[in-house]
Amino acid sequence: MSELFGATFLQPVSNTTALLMRLKRLTLHTRTQFQEVVIAEFEDFGRALVLDNLVQSTELDEHIYHESLVHIALMTHPLPKKVLVVGGGEGATIREVLKHSCVERVVMVDIDGELVEYAKKHLEFMHKGAFNDPRVEVVIMDGREYVDGCRETFDVAVMDLTDPYGPPIARELYTDEFYSKISKLLSEEGVMVTQAGSSFFFEEVYDSVLDAVKRVFPIVREYNVWVPAFGYTCNFIIGSKKYDPIAIPLEELKKRFKERQLKMRFYTPQAHLGLLYTPIFRKSRSNP
Amino acid sequence: MSELFGATFLQPVSNTTALLMRLKRLTLHTRTQFQEVVIAEFEDFGRALVLDNLVQSTELDEHIYHESLVHIALMTHPLPKKVLVVGGGEGATIREVLKHSCVERVVMVDIDGELVEYAKKHLEFMHKGAFNDPRVEVVIMDGREYVDGCRETFDVAVMDLTDPYGPPIARELYTDEFYSKISKLLSEEGVMVTQAGSSFFFEEVYDSVLDAVKRVFPIVREYNVWVPAFGYTCNFIIGSKKYDPIAIPLEELKKRFKERQLKMRFYTPQAHLGLLYTPIFRKSRSNP
Amino acid sequence: MSELFGATFLQPVSNTTALLMRLKRLTLHTRTQFQEVVIAEFEDFGRALVLDNLVQSTELDEHIYHESLVHIALMTHPLPKKVLVVGGGEGATIREVLKHSCVERVVMVDIDGELVEYAKKHLEFMHKGAFNDPRVEVVIMDGREYVDGCRETFDVAVMDLTDPYGPPIARELYTDEFYSKISKLLSEEGVMVTQAGSSFFFEEVYDSVLDAVKRVFPIVREYNVWVPAFGYTCNFIIGSKKYDPIAIPLEELKKRFKERQLKMRFYTPQAHLGLLYTPIFRKSRSNP
Amino acid sequence: MSELFGATFLQPVSNTTALLMRLKRLTLHTRTQFQEVVIAEFEDFGRALVLDNLVQSTELDEHIYHESLVHIALMTHPLPKKVLVVGGGEGATIREVLKHSCVERVVMVDIDGELVEYAKKHLEFMHKGAFNDPRVEVVIMDGREYVDGCRETFDVAVMDLTDPYGPPIARELYTDEFYSKISKLLSEEGVMVTQAGSSFFFEEVYDSVLDAVKRVFPIVREYNVWVPAFGYTCNFIIGSKKYDPIAIPLEELKKRFKERQLKMRFYTPQAHLGLLYTPIFRKSRSNP
Repeated sequence: MSELFGATFLQPVSNTTALLMRLKRLTLHTRTQFQEVVIAEFEDFGRALVLDNLVQSTELDEHIYHESLVHIALMTHPLPKKVLVVGGGEGATIREVLKHSCVERVVMVDIDGELVEYAKKHLEFMHKGAFNDPRVEVVIMDGREYVDGCRETFDVAVMDLTDPYGPPIARELYTDEFYSKISKLLSEEGVMVTQAGSSFFFEEVYDSVLDAVKRVFPIVREYNVWVPAFGYTCNFIIGSKKYDPIAIPLEELKKRFKERQLKMRFYTPQAHLGLLYTPIFRKSRSNP
Repeated sequence: MSELFGATFLQPVSNTTALLMRLKRLTLHTRTQFQEVVIAEFEDFGRALVLDNLVQSTELDEHIYHESLVHIALMTHPLPKKVLVVGGGEGATIREVLKHSCVERVVMVDIDGELVEYAKKHLEFMHKGAFNDPRVEVVIMDGREYVDGCRETFDVAVMDLTDPYGPPIARELYTDEFYSKISKLLSEEGVMVTQAGSSFFFEEVYDSVLDAVKRVFPIVREYNVWVPAFGYTCNFIIGSKKYDPIAIPLEELKKRFKERQLKMRFYTPQAHLGLLYTPIFRKSRSNP
Repeated sequence: MSELFGATFLQPVSNTTALLMRLKRLTLHTRTQFQEVVIAEFEDFGRALVLDNLVQSTELDEHIYHESLVHIALMTHPLPKKVLVVGGGEGATIREVLKHSCVERVVMVDIDGELVEYAKKHLEFMHKGAFNDPRVEVVIMDGREYVDGCRETFDVAVMDLTDPYGPPIARELYTDEFYSKISKLLSEEGVMVTQAGSSFFFEEVYDSVLDAVKRVFPIVREYNVWVPAFGYTCNFIIGSKKYDPIAIPLEELKKRFKERQLKMRFYTPQAHLGLLYTPIFRKSRSNP
Repeated sequence: MSELFGATFLQPVSNTTALLMRLKRLTLHTRTQFQEVVIAEFEDFGRALVLDNLVQSTELDEHIYHESLVHIALMTHPLPKKVLVVGGGEGATIREVLKHSCVERVVMVDIDGELVEYAKKHLEFMHKGAFNDPRVEVVIMDGREYVDGCRETFDVAVMDLTDPYGPPIARELYTDEFYSKISKLLSEEGVMVTQAGSSFFFEEVYDSVLDAVKRVFPIVREYNVWVPAFGYTCNFIIGSKKYDPIAIPLEELKKRFKERQLKMRFYTPQAHLGLLYTPIFRKSRSNP
């Protein structure tokens, strides 16, 4: 366990814990108007997109994150046709949304047009051509601005943003004010999901996001999944108007999985329940 | 995210990834015949037992590890009365076993008597007095030696050992030869569980352990749970003679939970299924 | 070179470089009104005093720092009898000053009385009893305040402060305003010396200190010496009213060394010239 | 002091101390028959050549190392015409040797031809065209082999090798057996110099090299200079047949400096004496 010397990457996990990962390559390095963009290659995780020193996605674990983010919400809706994605610049989130054969339209709204262009060119292994799918419309705009002006209705909304305790850029998208506007865009059976950082290391911030979702949606579910290159288990929160993700029978999940012709590496109908049945991690619960 | 300077702890996660955690205190430091023993206190995880530079248990997350290790196996058996624990020197594993009111006898076999004495004195927050429970017998002996000479029958066997790719001391306890001997000690409804390190970072070693369990037990189940201070999700493997842990209905789990008067911080009947339903993490699965 | 895992200490060297040093022990941890005080023990450097995450002195290299700080200035004065020390809470600077048999009185002014009490008790290996020398008077007071009210005259003044780019506490003691006041306290043959951080990593700050000394003293000399546990070469600046430290003949230095009955581990008359003859390290000089 | 997150380089300084330096770029990465070659760019040190995870030279400090290595030896010889360089693949050592206008021939022997080709192409900022100087002959060969077969006589020999406690490749070139052969190639006024790693962190190895030089040469001098990107002060040992480097008067050094039309960034006649007058750093001396 001693091959750590040489080029490495030091990534914050919390305020007082960090992950040190050996680098194989540091291929690209640029700064958009909004953030620093790096493409690196890690010994343990393969190629990776890094924004402002935080790993967003790596070859070897991005499917865990993106499948967990997208499919529980989409499977909770009986027939999602129109999906809104806020953030998700590297294109892997829309890639997952498009797997559902019933989806007819995906609007992806990202504030950072340079990052999206960059991803199109250099991150084919992430988006797998999703940007070329005729069902996709990409809008370069601040998420709040888009939502304010939008007159369309969506079945599912997926928030794929930087952490709620991360750069200021995404913070306003974790408030009940924003969730209310999202809720208004959603159909009667509408479902929203957001990644929510770490409930273990940043419990207070997490709780403020959870409370905001609860103030807007009648049905709220939490789950989390380990993302190896993050160094922690990533939390997700679902807000739903009508259907409870945990109450959908396994048989129904299997039926939808088959009907929608899904092909996955991590998510399965059983994993759907597995993630929702497993408790989330909280420091406070550790101090009874 | 910049309070990393000062006293820290650098812990290997894989061959090329490590966790750097801020230390609050470094209280004890000794070396037994078998290993280096440190008691540290981390900003993020509280007090911790560290063996040979690897965190074993911390105040804030040890319940996640120990409840996940013990209860799925014990709940799989309809009425466990006699339980064998191999390893588990800090006493938290027997603490969990003793929670099941039906348990009448626990034999804990650990090779490192100095560590056990040390834990009795300095790690009350781990064992919570479990060593004084009249149902417990502690045997200081190599696990293989004990198993060779044992004429008793057990309902459940729990292997709480250092990693299969860790110090040589525990490696022989991850072989089918050893599992066969364990199997002979188990009753007809017997269940065995072992922690198995990380299937993500050490997939080959993990698979050799999995294969060894499969060669001995007719029913085998895998699951994993994130342990924050390890920096990774820890794997567990169950070998069972008669009952399938995943096939026990939720209602039955709830009934046993109530009958055995269990009080938990992480494990619940629902979490039982949650852990077994969630896929384990493998790098190979990431390269389809 | 792989024994880095385990308890370590991460110390800033510059804004983007740090030293990671294996810890053997972390013995004491307290916070005075002014700073965080830690006593640690490093594998490479032995016991150490650490203030606000910056190593101040270690068993194995503090003599390099303290002898370099004190003796060039004291040897530059033909017969120093009264010496003012500002800072130097651990007592090693006055220990060095007291070695000169001609010294009759040392006033040490430190703002942090708790630190001084702490050093008296726990850092005997630093001060070696210097606080008990009848020639020493310790004054707990802000350096500026002391200098404002002082009516005494000194032959040499030694500034042993935290870095000029470090915590705000010492910054006012690196200005020409302060040096003017020091100059007024000094006799006609008076000499002042200050440590000045790193001219390599913090060249601009260093230059502002150098300029401040130059505005006050007619003779100014710079030198630097590697202090292993700092991770860099530490700079010193001498301001002198009459004698040039570099112009004192080796024979005269040897004579004074003998007369004053000096015993050293690092400083010698030859080293005196060695340090003054060796260029200081500057990044700007590296870009011709 | 918190801009350490992101791409970094972890470099061993001793067995239990390391330097963590922020990376700006990681441009090239190859493996020759003998070693791993990386060109990196550090925030603090600019572009750098790294062999087997150890920084060899950086833009901002290589002149300190190379001028200190070369010029004390060459200035000790009254009129060096023929110079042998063993190692020094990046070409900066011959660049310094060629500055002496009296030098008529330089033979550079390096075992790693791929590295030399690589340096010619990618490290112009190191060699500054030195490889094209008609006075230079480059021989790709093991140093011992070359010396065994050599029938030429040299005035100065410069050993610019990886550390004596580093990769096995250079170890045989730090023995008295090898120094005897070097001595036979040197003229009557011949001088040899070798870098010798760190006498502070690897004192035993250093002493074995020092002893080896002493067994072969009548006059031996030690000196050391801080090289910022190494994280330590680098030692050098001179073995001389006739002239003592420390005994050459400053006036004579100045005369030679002028005659040979030298232009330097770090070395000066005064620095020559400064380096030789300053004690080297030893842990043992720290424990009186």
